Amino acid sequence: MRQSQLLLTTLRESPADAEAVSHQLMLRAGFIRQLAAGIYTYMPLGRRVLRKAEQIIREEMDRAGAQELLMPAMQPVELWKESGRYSVYGPELIRLHDRHDREFALGPTHEEVITSIVREEINSYRKLPFTLYQIQTKFRDERRPRYGLLRSREFLMKDAYSFDADWNGLDQSYTKMFNAYNRIFTRCGINFRAVEADSGAIGGEGGTHEFMALADIGEDTIAACTCCEYAANLEKAEPGILPLEAVAGFDAEPLEKLLTPGVRTIDQLVLSLQIKPADIMKTVIFMVDHNAVAVVVRGDHEINEIKVKDHLGAKSISIADPDTVERVTGLPIGFIGPRGLTIPVLVDHAVLQMPYGIAGANEADYHYRHFNAGRDIDLLQVGHFRNAAEGDRCPSCNEGVLKFHRGIEMGHVFKLGTKYSEKLGATFLDSAGKDQPMIMGCYGIGVSRILSAVLEQNHDEHGMIWPSALAPFHVHLIPISSKDDIQMQAANDLYNRLLENGVEALLDDREERPGVKFKDSDLIGIPIRIIIGKDAEYGNVEFVERRNLKKESISIHDAVARIMEFVSDL
Amino acid sequence: MRQSQLLLTTLRESPADAEAVSHQLMLRAGFIRQLAAGIYTYMPLGRRVLRKAEQIIREEMDRAGAQELLMPAMQPVELWKESGRYSVYGPELIRLHDRHDREFALGPTHEEVITSIVREEINSYRKLPFTLYQIQTKFRDERRPRYGLLRSREFLMKDAYSFDADWNGLDQSYTKMFNAYNRIFTRCGINFRAVEADSGAIGGEGGTHEFMALADIGEDTIAACTCCEYAANLEKAEPGILPLEAVAGFDAEPLEKLLTPGVRTIDQLVLSLQIKPADIMKTVIFMVDHNAVAVVVRGDHEINEIKVKDHLGAKSISIADPDTVERVTGLPIGFIGPRGLTIPVLVDHAVLQMPYGIAGANEADYHYRHFNAGRDIDLLQVGHFRNAAEGDRCPSCNEGVLKFHRGIEMGHVFKLGTKYSEKLGATFLDSAGKDQPMIMGCYGIGVSRILSAVLEQNHDEHGMIWPSALAPFHVHLIPISSKDDIQMQAANDLYNRLLENGVEALLDDREERPGVKFKDSDLIGIPIRIIIGKDAEYGNVEFVERRNLKKESISIHDAVARIMEFVSDL
Repeated sequence: MRQSQLLLTTLRESPADAEAVSHQLMLRAGFIRQLAAGIYTYMPLGRRVLRKAEQIIREEMDRAGAQELLMPAMQPVELWKESGRYSVYGPELIRLHDRHDREFALGPTHEEVITSIVREEINSYRKLPFTLYQIQTKFRDERRPRYGLLRSREFLMKDAYSFDADWNGLDQSYTKMFNAYNRIFTRCGINFRAVEADSGAIGGEGGTHEFMALADIGEDTIAACTCCEYAANLEKAEPGILPLEAVAGFDAEPLEKLLTPGVRTIDQLVLSLQIKPADIMKTVIFMVDHNAVAVVVRGDHEINEIKVKDHLGAKSISIADPDTVERVTGLPIGFIGPRGLTIPVLVDHAVLQMPYGIAGANEADYHYRHFNAGRDIDLLQVGHFRNAAEGDRCPSCNEGVLKFHRGIEMGHVFKLGTKYSEKLGATFLDSAGKDQPMIMGCYGIGVSRILSAVLEQNHDEHGMIWPSALAPFHVHLIPISSKDDIQMQAANDLYNRLLENGVEALLDDREERPGVKFKDSDLIGIPIRIIIGKDAEYGNVEFVERRNLKKESISIHDAVARIMEFVSDL
Repeated sequence: MRQSQLLLTTLRESPADAEAVSHQLMLRAGFIRQLAAGIYTYMPLGRRVLRKAEQIIREEMDRAGAQELLMPAMQPVELWKESGRYSVYGPELIRLHDRHDREFALGPTHEEVITSIVREEINSYRKLPFTLYQIQTKFRDERRPRYGLLRSREFLMKDAYSFDADWNGLDQSYTKMFNAYNRIFTRCGINFRAVEADSGAIGGEGGTHEFMALADIGEDTIAACTCCEYAANLEKAEPGILPLEAVAGFDAEPLEKLLTPGVRTIDQLVLSLQIKPADIMKTVIFMVDHNAVAVVVRGDHEINEIKVKDHLGAKSISIADPDTVERVTGLPIGFIGPRGLTIPVLVDHAVLQMPYGIAGANEADYHYRHFNAGRDIDLLQVGHFRNAAEGDRCPSCNEGVLKFHRGIEMGHVFKLGTKYSEKLGATFLDSAGKDQPMIMGCYGIGVSRILSAVLEQNHDEHGMIWPSALAPFHVHLIPISSKDDIQMQAANDLYNRLLENGVEALLDDREERPGVKFKDSDLIGIPIRIIIGKDAEYGNVEFVERRNLKKESISIHDAVARIMEFVSDL
């Protein structure tokens, strides 16, 4: 395309309200324009990148055997009432009334719709399994839209849904999607991790992974192994455990009571005893389904309430207030410890691995030292009751340690199970003629988010650096002077030759100073730049890689060869 | 694709509420499913066809130099207030409120949004002209959704907008789009006409054409020439006029008064005088901007109020009620004629071309005969004041005559002029440094409608007959018996060979009786069918063209060659 005809307005300054680099760059480089808070137009360059992401996703979905369909954005709320989500989804669900006063929701997701379609189409195990997908616009009325395409209110999503006759089948469907997601994000040139995640609000019974692009702007924390592929959400990660033998032989010192008058908090203990928080065993009382339990973690660790709740198979959990603690234990706050309590004592693995620690003595102004959990607590339950911490042992390879990253969620694969098929009555007759709910999985990718994630990872102080598979054009041709006939002739020849060979070339034929052209070129970040200057007379041009801005003078012939090689790798 | 894995449920019966053949077929063949009135899901086969239509449109838009972008569906109503359409669009515009109670419209079209974008991006004639397009979901709350995808509430549309510095430029932009539309609908295999149309509600100052697929179900009537390319909407068509010399020499008979007691209507005149309606000159009184005018047309013609209004440059028109007629003319209804009236008399061309006619005598119980408009009316204004009729002379070639067709509107090209650029302040500095509003055009295609139009034109009693460019698959492979190893081996070999060559093949590998497979195959209408039966043992198959169901026994080798030839033509 000739740049003089391209609708492209670049800005020198970043708009003041754009916090994320990717957002700033997309505005400055004219890839997107805001129409309302969290609502964007994809301008021609942005649309090209978005289409490339769509195409990669579509190819990999098809390759994984998924079938494309297209569901409506307008969804009758009756379906949301059937699933029970109408009342719980909250103001993120955009609702409207049609001219007959019938209520609709603008789909933030399509579990209800797909289940209602499949229940009409399928009645026998013979027609299972299958996976359906669509690439379609979603609506979510975010409370606080931000970061441009990262958290917007109208966005492009790929959502897929699998239907199986049994859980084994779901595992296979899930794996196919999991592998497809790995291929998609790899092809997009993203540095990502597939992260074990929590099931959260969407509901469901099986496993779930989030595909996270590593980026400082990310709103999630990921714990990833330094050696192997293991990664999990901070809340979900279960740190590796040393075999207990490794910490055995440390119970030689007897339990000992210390006078610690007025020393109630971790900080006070650290100061007064000249120890580290990691030397302390912290005991916290929770109310779990209206019963009090004590949870013991290392002094430097954070208790993870979801893990406590899940361990007990409970529905609700909250930290006990001081009055409740005194009422339930009869003990003074600040000196509570795990020994001799009459309520269940949940001890985190890391505490069991401490040879000795400092713990409350359940007596005002006293703590224990040389406390060994295995030895000194009678009825303890051991489990994972805390968030992972940096430096924790990897639970998968047991060699590396966990390191924390910030991540942008780009995709999510989820074993839904029978939640929606039961609520909406999507059943089939199994081979024995018995009615069964279908086993479902759901699989989402934020297509627009991919652009943000890629840019967060691929930019420099001059602008965007597009990975080749997503670049709006492959090659940017820049004649130094649009008034020099030799340069323009060479540029036009090269341009036509590239087009004939299927190369996506952008020719900057504008009457602008070279500095303006180079600044724009840096900003929009096309991977290869060919500068046609004075040496064009001798058949030479400058070949520039946007990623490192390395310049090289080569013949036009060699330039074409290198460009063709580059394109053939795509 | 293997049909056993395709989500496809065909129905033997047409749903009772589907009136149009295309709607019935799409439901029966499992191409679409209704989610709510006028709201559909495209199932896998329907999605494939829709994607092919999208692709053809995209290619031709790009070829015409248009640039793709993607605008949001959610539009702040402030823009609709700026354009003035907020108050006039009515209940077809779906409105909603976000969580902050800000009002949005779901875009039925994007003139406001595109104009608001361009006004920020462009400020100089140097950056004009350009044309932008998108393929995007639109929302229109139709009062009466019907005919499946033909009149639905959520639908896929291609909309394009051109921006020019002057009217000459608009003419060129318009012509590019006009030509692109011709290519698109030709490639889609549609029998269509580009029809001169009325500007209607969208507003604008220039020309406009509708692209109409000829089909009985169509809601519009088109007058098209039997000889040349001329076609126009019934309301817009202006019939050809014979040179007046051709009807001269007939004023020899003097005007004569006839006693016609109680004969007031055309029907009564026909009966009582034994004449045809075409022998009568019909005079009707209208109130145009509060002034009375008389309009005279031939007795068998329909007055076109818009043409009358446009002729007078008026804003409103309505037929005068009997009291008004008597008050304004002082004459008895049923005997009013054009001679001697004191109000303006508008005479249709066809009346001027009548040598003689019967007309009211402006006196109770009398008519004139041998009335010649040119001779017997003093102050007449001649013009086109009626709808075209079948058999009218073509105004373009003056050789053929007009024939009426029913048409489905698939596309619309429109010279908008400055309506939106003025209202929304999209101006640019011209070469003299003067601020000017941009000259706009808009160009729509109902992408989903193409499917309906194609099916209305391409079906038989057995089902769909897809034109090759839109077919969901190129070839349907049907082994007669899925239990016959030789047949299945031959079918699988052929299938793999076709896939390797880029042919889109559907292999019916289901365990069904041949009759079921053939019925389904007829219904979904893939252009080429290969039946693999007993002769597969000897390397022969049956080659069937869906369009005529002609069967031919040929070698597998020849079948492949013919299929490859077919595909290369696409």
